[in-house]
Amino acid sequence: MVDILIRSARVLQLKDETATILNEHDILIEGNRITAIQPTGELDPSHAKTVLDADGQVAMPGFINTHAHVPMVLWRGMGEDVNLDSWFNDYIWPLENNLTPDDVFWGMQLGLMEMIEAGITAVSDHYWHMDYAARAVEKAGTRALLGQAMFSSNGMGQIDDTADFVQRWNGQANGRIRTILAPHAPYTCEDDFLKATAQKAEEIGAGIHIHVAETIAQTQASLERRGQTPIEVLEETGILTAPTILAHVIGATPNDLEVLSIATAPVGIAQCPKTYAKLGMGYANLVEYRKMGLPVGLGTDGAVSNNTLDLWESMRLTAMGQKQLTEDAENLTIPQALTIATQESAQVYGQGDDLGDLAVGKLADVILVDVSGIHHQPLNSVTASLVYNTRAGDVQTVICDGQVIMQDRQHKTLDKGEILDHVLPQMERLRQRDNTHRIQTYNP
Amino acid sequence: MVDILIRSARVLQLKDETATILNEHDILIEGNRITAIQPTGELDPSHAKTVLDADGQVAMPGFINTHAHVPMVLWRGMGEDVNLDSWFNDYIWPLENNLTPDDVFWGMQLGLMEMIEAGITAVSDHYWHMDYAARAVEKAGTRALLGQAMFSSNGMGQIDDTADFVQRWNGQANGRIRTILAPHAPYTCEDDFLKATAQKAEEIGAGIHIHVAETIAQTQASLERRGQTPIEVLEETGILTAPTILAHVIGATPNDLEVLSIATAPVGIAQCPKTYAKLGMGYANLVEYRKMGLPVGLGTDGAVSNNTLDLWESMRLTAMGQKQLTEDAENLTIPQALTIATQESAQVYGQGDDLGDLAVGKLADVILVDVSGIHHQPLNSVTASLVYNTRAGDVQTVICDGQVIMQDRQHKTLDKGEILDHVLPQMERLRQRDNTHRIQTYNP
Repeated sequence: MVDILIRSARVLQLKDETATILNEHDILIEGNRITAIQPTGELDPSHAKTVLDADGQVAMPGFINTHAHVPMVLWRGMGEDVNLDSWFNDYIWPLENNLTPDDVFWGMQLGLMEMIEAGITAVSDHYWHMDYAARAVEKAGTRALLGQAMFSSNGMGQIDDTADFVQRWNGQANGRIRTILAPHAPYTCEDDFLKATAQKAEEIGAGIHIHVAETIAQTQASLERRGQTPIEVLEETGILTAPTILAHVIGATPNDLEVLSIATAPVGIAQCPKTYAKLGMGYANLVEYRKMGLPVGLGTDGAVSNNTLDLWESMRLTAMGQKQLTEDAENLTIPQALTIATQESAQVYGQGDDLGDLAVGKLADVILVDVSGIHHQPLNSVTASLVYNTRAGDVQTVICDGQVIMQDRQHKTLDKGEILDHVLPQMERLRQRDNTHRIQTYNP
Repeated sequence: MVDILIRSARVLQLKDETATILNEHDILIEGNRITAIQPTGELDPSHAKTVLDADGQVAMPGFINTHAHVPMVLWRGMGEDVNLDSWFNDYIWPLENNLTPDDVFWGMQLGLMEMIEAGITAVSDHYWHMDYAARAVEKAGTRALLGQAMFSSNGMGQIDDTADFVQRWNGQANGRIRTILAPHAPYTCEDDFLKATAQKAEEIGAGIHIHVAETIAQTQASLERRGQTPIEVLEETGILTAPTILAHVIGATPNDLEVLSIATAPVGIAQCPKTYAKLGMGYANLVEYRKMGLPVGLGTDGAVSNNTLDLWESMRLTAMGQKQLTEDAENLTIPQALTIATQESAQVYGQGDDLGDLAVGKLADVILVDVSGIHHQPLNSVTASLVYNTRAGDVQTVICDGQVIMQDRQHKTLDKGEILDHVLPQMERLRQRDNTHRIQTYNP
């Protein structure tokens, strides 16, 4: 008796950057693992506790959001048409003055719900009050890699506090929750603070999730101020000796890429192209990054810059952005975009062996995508449709860790009414914005 | 007795590039015109033949697709990850060898259906067998500005033939169908052919829809070959003396912009940013174009480059693309993006006085958009949500020319099953591709 039989799907398979579709195939799930992928008909549906009739839907790995600040959905649409300095100093950091643990608990649920509807089953989240974020993840049934954000201006004591958080939550919720140390950025964390964080990471066996070289201007400012790039600062302070998620890395020099490519610990690059476009930040040349062996993961960043938590958009914008940047439409092909969205994002997330692939033995994070809509017709290429035509609304069913958390667009874990009942009455308070009171100042 | 009462909507209003929302307002429609926009409650619903309860949905003008080749949806997903030369010579022009009038009739319906679902009520379409496209538009209940594509290699006789088409269909379907002359491009039409087309346009009072300066490379090739830019060729051959829709115009020189800005007839620029990104074509600097008084309209191009016929995507990519291109997030703001999508697209389409605005006396092309989805919550800014969060799937109801053509996502005019029953059996024939047999060769 299997736990879940996904019946008669189009199963997406990616190998060596080649994408294929297994038509009319079943996926069998026992516990939280995939135990078989086989032609429909080999298993009688009566041998499954739950049968999900996929009938031509595409089965693919759940998306992995490698860089986000999920509870920022609370301020969605509130930092528009401004450049990065103003965005930080006039919007985000004044607004974040208002944040309470309860806001994180409910804001996290709101964002998790949006992500579930978009087929995102895991998120690497970098934010505050992360015990409350963890409780929201427990409830949602998704995976998360949680890091408590730190500015060095808040003192060295944070490092032990967040290390406690890391140890308290790592492996909880049947392993769905993992944890990470999360210093904000080299421009908001002094060298001593970064060094102490790196030492703590080694001591407790944790990874590090940090923003770095977000723009070319940041790299230039760092070079002028101290003669080192932000990536070189990470190297010198020991950050790169831990498994690391580096968010953005748009302002990397050729030497920076060399440094990253020879780092002994795994380094992953998280990319949030909608945020970069909206803030006019430029794009990293991912074609080169990938040639140097650096894995690239998709991210949404927070919803005040990205507006949505939708990795279909991030995937599409990643592919299109690289074609524009390199002026070569042969770059970042459909199979490459799908590889980045699945296997490479899993690698950046630190679970490359267990996630991002539909194969026997992998964790059962599977989404079912309806490609029967008129915007997919005629379905000349399933893989082209996944990259360029699919909307979050086409995701029908979401399985995470062997549990169905959304079925035919009905949520099984979170309740929209309950979430909005908690969030909406707080919005007048949360929208207050006094830019003489901000949690930090952007001056990289 | 009014014909349609749209009740309790959030009505989008744009004036001088400022966007406002009238909350809890009704829109009254009589015949094919808007006769009032007023606070909910002023008219008793019993005084309307049809009441559409919008209840918090956003009412905005139907989108206008200013440049498309709608029946190309038939080959959706079939020209991926290749550059422009190969895209034309190895994919599009060999595939178009297969095209029959019947393919246009059904392919047009397929694309119109996708556009209706995305809230597009008008399309400027540039393609072949346009009598059949016109019949599809009659059936769909949308508007269209139809042009029969011409290459000069097919002979001067085409000009009279398409002029006949123009005169036969202009003003048909209660004025929903308008027509235009459609020479393909300066690189596929000799000067004599363009001159004769311009003369015919003047003779019959028609406008002209043409591709021009699609890339910087095309402009350079033209300069090398004949010492004139493609825009200068249009000027010299008299094309710009007719009201003109210019598709793409990415490779415009400063002098070209000057030429266009002083043209005596109205000139509109159609922009299809998803196509440009996918083909690595670069972006035009629309901030400058608009400063010179050139109106910009949104387009989808054909679905072999654009994959979808979705102007939400085009609007979003236009705003984001300009911020990236100019490295300034203050450019192409949300109100500007909405103005381009509505009033300016209407101007490019040649009906700026009648379309693109919800106001008394305007033609009743109205769409209702659901912003209650979790990806809009909390709804801190309706206008930000329209530009950055809304998906085609959020469009609930579509009214064109005073007729409801989709209500609560149920189509009233077209039938998906019927369309697919006609299209799918043709696909094996339509997908044949022999690049020694193409309808034209790309060598600008």
